[in-house]
Formats: sequence, structure tokens, C-alpha cells
Amino acid sequence: MEPHDAPDLSAFKLAFRRHAAGVAVVTGRTAEGVPVGFTATSLASLAAVPPLATFNMARISTAWPAVEHTDHVIIHLLGARNRALADRLSGPHDARFAGDHWVPGPHDLPLLTDVPAWMLGRIVERVRVADNAVVVVQIEDGGLGDEDAALLYHERRYLTPGELAAE
Amino acid sequence: MEPHDAPDLSAFKLAFRRHAAGVAVVTGRTAEGVPVGFTATSLASLAAVPPLATFNMARISTAWPAVEHTDHVIIHLLGARNRALADRLSGPHDARFAGDHWVPGPHDLPLLTDVPAWMLGRIVERVRVADNAVVVVQIEDGGLGDEDAALLYHERRYLTPGELAAE
Repeated sequence: MEPHDAPDLSAFKLAFRRHAAGVAVVTGRTAEGVPVGFTATSLASLAAVPPLATFNMARISTAWPAVEHTDHVIIHLLGARNRALADRLSGPHDARFAGDHWVPGPHDLPLLTDVPAWMLGRIVERVRVADNAVVVVQIEDGGLGDEDAALLYHERRYLTPGELAAE
Repeated sequence: MEPHDAPDLSAFKLAFRRHAAGVAVVTGRTAEGVPVGFTATSLASLAAVPPLATFNMARISTAWPAVEHTDHVIIHLLGARNRALADRLSGPHDARFAGDHWVPGPHDLPLLTDVPAWMLGRIVERVRVADNAVVVVQIEDGGLGDEDAALLYHERRYLTPGELAAE
């Protein structure tokens, strides 16, 4: 079968709708001390030695000033039990840090409690592309919480991993 | 519950083991015309307008010369039926393009047949970080094939998406 043609740029949206991604939350603190953060489906490993990871964001994000002007963020990997957290950190800004779902962590950054894993990242590159940015971090510390099924975002829904793909 | 401490850098590997990622294959052609490609779990959307995406790679990859010296790649989003393709494009280099699983596509780039979706990307940034690179592409074209469950990589296994996460 030959792939069908879809030469207009909706190809991008249609293609990414078929892509599945793990769900993370990135948190930071602005130079003024305000906690900021957002749900990200772009977290990716870049290298293991040294430990490097990337995530993407819009520069209109309320978290951009923290990424632009401070050195560290915390990246949290979400599990199935954190579904509500994914919604909260992608919802109204005033509600993102209203509650007891976080504590001050390393560098006084917001550390979400009850996540399967988190990593402290030192920002080593900020690559501005159009109105967006690719952020490269070197992982300096981290911790593990209780295990859980990974939280996935796929076709605009939150899912968990299912069956093994047939060989 | 407070996340447990795991301050050594194995935190990075342990954390990413808990991360789930969609599976893509990036293909290119060196300036000498040799088809190259690799299985990637780092594909991420950067922006919809203009349509931008990112992927990460090691600069020791046999595909790096194509990314470094040519302008375009094709990014394929894999489905469950492409499990063998994911293995092939991460296996021995000589076998990656031996077979009839691809045809010459736009810009004569290797186009894998029978994938759920593919996108033609023009390389707009190559960010070298240590021995690696973050590659930013602008999507210029694309196509859709038959629908399929998305192929995931999680805990070193190929999976498909499963149940909805509870709200």
C-alpha cells in the first residue's frame, strides 16, 4: 500500500494525532519567586552520558520567564494516578499551584508529590524557533516514587500502555 | 508520600525507564546518495503554526552525515503493524534498507511504505550538545496510510496504547 497523499499542512496535525507520547510536568520558579509549570508531551531523552533531556514549549507560556531567566527546572514523569495533575497543570494558571500537591524541592523549585519519577534539570540550551523554544537540560538529581502505569496522551485522550505489539 | 531520594545519575535512567514514548523512524540520504535512517523515540511536536517538530540523535549515528549536510528528512510514525520495521531500523546498518519496505519518496528520500503517517521535514536547526544533536524540522508535506494502533516503547518493550486513565 502506498501512503495516501495529504500534501497540505494539516498533514502535520493528522500525523501527530497518530503519535502517542508520555506525559510530563515541568516546573520552575520565576526570578521573582512565582511557581510556574506546565504539562508537556514533548519530553525526550537526548543522551545518557552526560544525562541530557529535551522538552519543547511556547514562549508565550507563563513558564517561559522562569526557563529564560533561571537555571533549573524539575521534570516529573506522570503515572496513571496523576491524570488529574496533568489536567491541573494544563488548566487555569491560578489553580496550578493552589493546593497541597507540591512541596518546595531542590533549589526551592515546585516538586510535585506522588509522581513515579522526577528529575532536577539544569538548563544548558534554550533554542528559540519562531514563537517556541527547545530546552535542553542536564539531569543533576532525581527521585523515584511508587511505581505506576505510565500516563500517555494519544488522540487527545489520556491512556495507559496496553498489550505488547506482535513481533 | 515523598518521592524517595536517588541522587546519583542513575536517576536519569530509572526515570526514563518509566517514561513511555511513541516510535518513529527518521530517514535521509547522504550527499553521496546512500539511504540512512534510524528508529527514534524522541519525536515531539514543537509548534503547529508553522508546523515544527523535533527529534534527537547521536552524532555517531550513520544518519548524522545526512542530517548535517542535506536539507530534508522523512519522519514516519509507526503503528503496531510496524513493529518489525522498528527493529529493522535499529538493527544492523546493512539490513536497514535491504528489502522492499521502502520506495524513493519526496526529494528521493527513503519513504517507508505501509506506515500510518509520514511527514517530510526541512531541517531548520541542528543543535549540537556534547556528542548528540537536537534537530528541528519544519513539516512541508506528508501522507497518511491505513490507521493502526500507535506503537509505543516503554520499559524496553514495544506496546500499544491500552485503557483510558481514570479521571
